[in-house]
Amino acid sequence: MSEGVTQGSTRRRGRRPGGSDTRAALVDAARTVFIEQGYDGATVRAIAARAGVDAAMVNHWFGGKEGLFAEAVLKLPFNPRDVADLLLQGSVENLGERIARTFLTTWDTTGGGVFTALVRSVTSHDQAGHVLRDFLVKHIVERVLRTTGTDDVEFRATLIATQLVGMGMIRYVAQFEPLASTDIDTMVAAVGPTLQRYISGPIS
Amino acid sequence: MSEGVTQGSTRRRGRRPGGSDTRAALVDAARTVFIEQGYDGATVRAIAARAGVDAAMVNHWFGGKEGLFAEAVLKLPFNPRDVADLLLQGSVENLGERIARTFLTTWDTTGGGVFTALVRSVTSHDQAGHVLRDFLVKHIVERVLRTTGTDDVEFRATLIATQLVGMGMIRYVAQFEPLASTDIDTMVAAVGPTLQRYISGPIS
Repeated sequence: MSEGVTQGSTRRRGRRPGGSDTRAALVDAARTVFIEQGYDGATVRAIAARAGVDAAMVNHWFGGKEGLFAEAVLKLPFNPRDVADLLLQGSVENLGERIARTFLTTWDTTGGGVFTALVRSVTSHDQAGHVLRDFLVKHIVERVLRTTGTDDVEFRATLIATQLVGMGMIRYVAQFEPLASTDIDTMVAAVGPTLQRYISGPIS
Repeated sequence: MSEGVTQGSTRRRGRRPGGSDTRAALVDAARTVFIEQGYDGATVRAIAARAGVDAAMVNHWFGGKEGLFAEAVLKLPFNPRDVADLLLQGSVENLGERIARTFLTTWDTTGGGVFTALVRSVTSHDQAGHVLRDFLVKHIVERVLRTTGTDDVEFRATLIATQLVGMGMIRYVAQFEPLASTDIDTMVAAVGPTLQRYISGPIS
């Protein structure tokens, strides 16, 4: 969706053209810079400079740093900003169910292979673990939680991560039955209340 | 504890002596047979035969097939049978808290390195995933659940696995803060009620 076919007209400096080779160059450069600097340390300017393209191309092709990271490093099948926006539509009371449903719908669609690759990268490289935390927990889960007015946002965000990551591990990586084949509605009914308590319920 | 220093007097057939070389031979043979046959398919007799020792040595050194598997394949720092017995002492009403506390106490003690190795083996070998499910879910979680008289034992067991595996992933593998450094009492208060609902609460 963000891979729009229209060409931005804001290109000013003459480096590479803004076509698909620019896109590929940005992905390559981003992998290197994110691994070297971490998510927070990497700047759009540094990535664009390494790719030899204008920094505006990052917004043009990826909708910003988040989208570039999601594609270049995490190889996510979705744009995290869209996911966070989607989660914020609706009441806080059933946010847990929405998170569970969004998580399962997204990863079920990819057959879980991308999730497994993500876990493998976290278990094999320390740096990837840090980057993933910065990105998924801080920029998605915490961002959503901060809109709810709840306390203990950081701890709650990591509790939510335990349930989501664990669900992915059992459903997609280890594929334990019957959970691996359980339909999404049943999963949401079972896991949604857990997430809801981690979002806004008593946890101590 | 099960590595008793006393020597069994039941040895009858003259194969290897019952010393530490027997123990090591059993561990080697067990790795091969468990991977080839899975946990349920592998017999104590087949493992002992491959090691060239008397089958009684398995009980002598490992307290049975479970203990041998835990050490040879999972490299667990505890005997699963002891863990299950421990969990069964006490009321069903706070079984969730006991499971959380036992899990955290056990893995915190090892520094989480063994847990990480376990996850890595599951993510890199399909066979290990099956074996792990057979073993941990069926022989520990389901065994404990069956004593509670709850319904949907298989689904509940895998739900419990999601929360435990996810907690281990975030605390030991990815080491997301603040959860990675949160004290055990606080963790048990947060996660215990989740496990308790998966054990005996409404899940649909």
